[in-house]
Amino acid sequence: MSMLRYSVSISLDGFVAGANQGPDHPLGDGGERLHQWMRGLAVWRQQAGLEGGETNASTAVLEEEDRNIGAIIMGRNMFGGTGDWGDGSWRGWWGANPPFHMPVFVVTHHARPVLVMDGGTTFTFVEGGILAALDLAREAAHGADVALSGGAGTAKQYLVAGLVDEVALHLVPTFLGEGVRLFDDPRLRDVSFEILRVVAAPDVTHLTYRVGS
Amino acid sequence: MSMLRYSVSISLDGFVAGANQGPDHPLGDGGERLHQWMRGLAVWRQQAGLEGGETNASTAVLEEEDRNIGAIIMGRNMFGGTGDWGDGSWRGWWGANPPFHMPVFVVTHHARPVLVMDGGTTFTFVEGGILAALDLAREAAHGADVALSGGAGTAKQYLVAGLVDEVALHLVPTFLGEGVRLFDDPRLRDVSFEILRVVAAPDVTHLTYRVGS
Repeated sequence: MSMLRYSVSISLDGFVAGANQGPDHPLGDGGERLHQWMRGLAVWRQQAGLEGGETNASTAVLEEEDRNIGAIIMGRNMFGGTGDWGDGSWRGWWGANPPFHMPVFVVTHHARPVLVMDGGTTFTFVEGGILAALDLAREAAHGADVALSGGAGTAKQYLVAGLVDEVALHLVPTFLGEGVRLFDDPRLRDVSFEILRVVAAPDVTHLTYRVGS
Repeated sequence: MSMLRYSVSISLDGFVAGANQGPDHPLGDGGERLHQWMRGLAVWRQQAGLEGGETNASTAVLEEEDRNIGAIIMGRNMFGGTGDWGDGSWRGWWGANPPFHMPVFVVTHHARPVLVMDGGTTFTFVEGGILAALDLAREAAHGADVALSGGAGTAKQYLVAGLVDEVALHLVPTFLGEGVRLFDDPRLRDVSFEILRVVAAPDVTHLTYRVGS
């Protein structure tokens, strides 16, 4: 069965982005600290086209995260751009050859034709809501899993609706103090998590949960 | 060097107690779920005067938590009772023989003589604030560590003041939805945590951090 899997770096105080997020500052104040644990890893650097890097307990976690993913869902905030797309010149944060290399479905209120990028990435803009996006993504994944890629607003909608099957939290020992909290909805009381895997790495703790409802 | 160590069970959404806490309901709505992982353990049951129970990865964590503790600090909310103590008949939640068996220092705004209980527990009521309580507790501990025992309000004061040396989070895969958050103060940005130990148990993940500032 194709699963919907969500993976996110989160601070000890529960933030997945800092305050004052904006077009030039997508992670918000201090948000880059949430991703610091990845930047030294050879497996991450290779995907980003960089040399060198190390291997540690986080390596296998990142590799596992990419395994058996056939499509990606993201929210409009993660794709970026504003309102009704204007002249359509905004094509995401990632340049001509985005690092996804598979079909990506963007949940949005604004219609737009499919964007075909280099390297196998396509961006399909879905106006019909989170269920419609999930249906399309599953179809595109041909039986493989679907990755839910954020931002937090979209991820929360899927979580609260009971549509996520697996959540991986990369728990970073830092505090952002304010920003975007992932888990701040009373309806989460109806969602049950079961511990699947715990991996201790030097600068982060990887916690994977199976989600029921 | 005598350390101040704080240990607490916390939900995935960051709550250490549920909503609607009160004298008859000290953990708030759903708060008992945070402590469920302990109740089946032989080591916990023995302390509570109960028979049976099992041994798992959490056992060593609980044992370690009690090791080398010479005094305890708690907040007024944890000790219970209201206002200026009235007739002094409130002697804590725990009966004539509380499970502490050592000196306990209660941070309070209301003076009261020391309470000497059965089994070696004494409750000393400290009006001088968190630093005064820590000084007294360290002195009583004679070089052993001091345990910071909650509630959340008192623990936060010590954390934000940079006075805690070690924090153990027992991260329970459940959501309370609302209640008392442990980490909700922007000043936490100035506190640094370093991962010391991670222990995966069946129903809880034990995360121990060394605190700097």
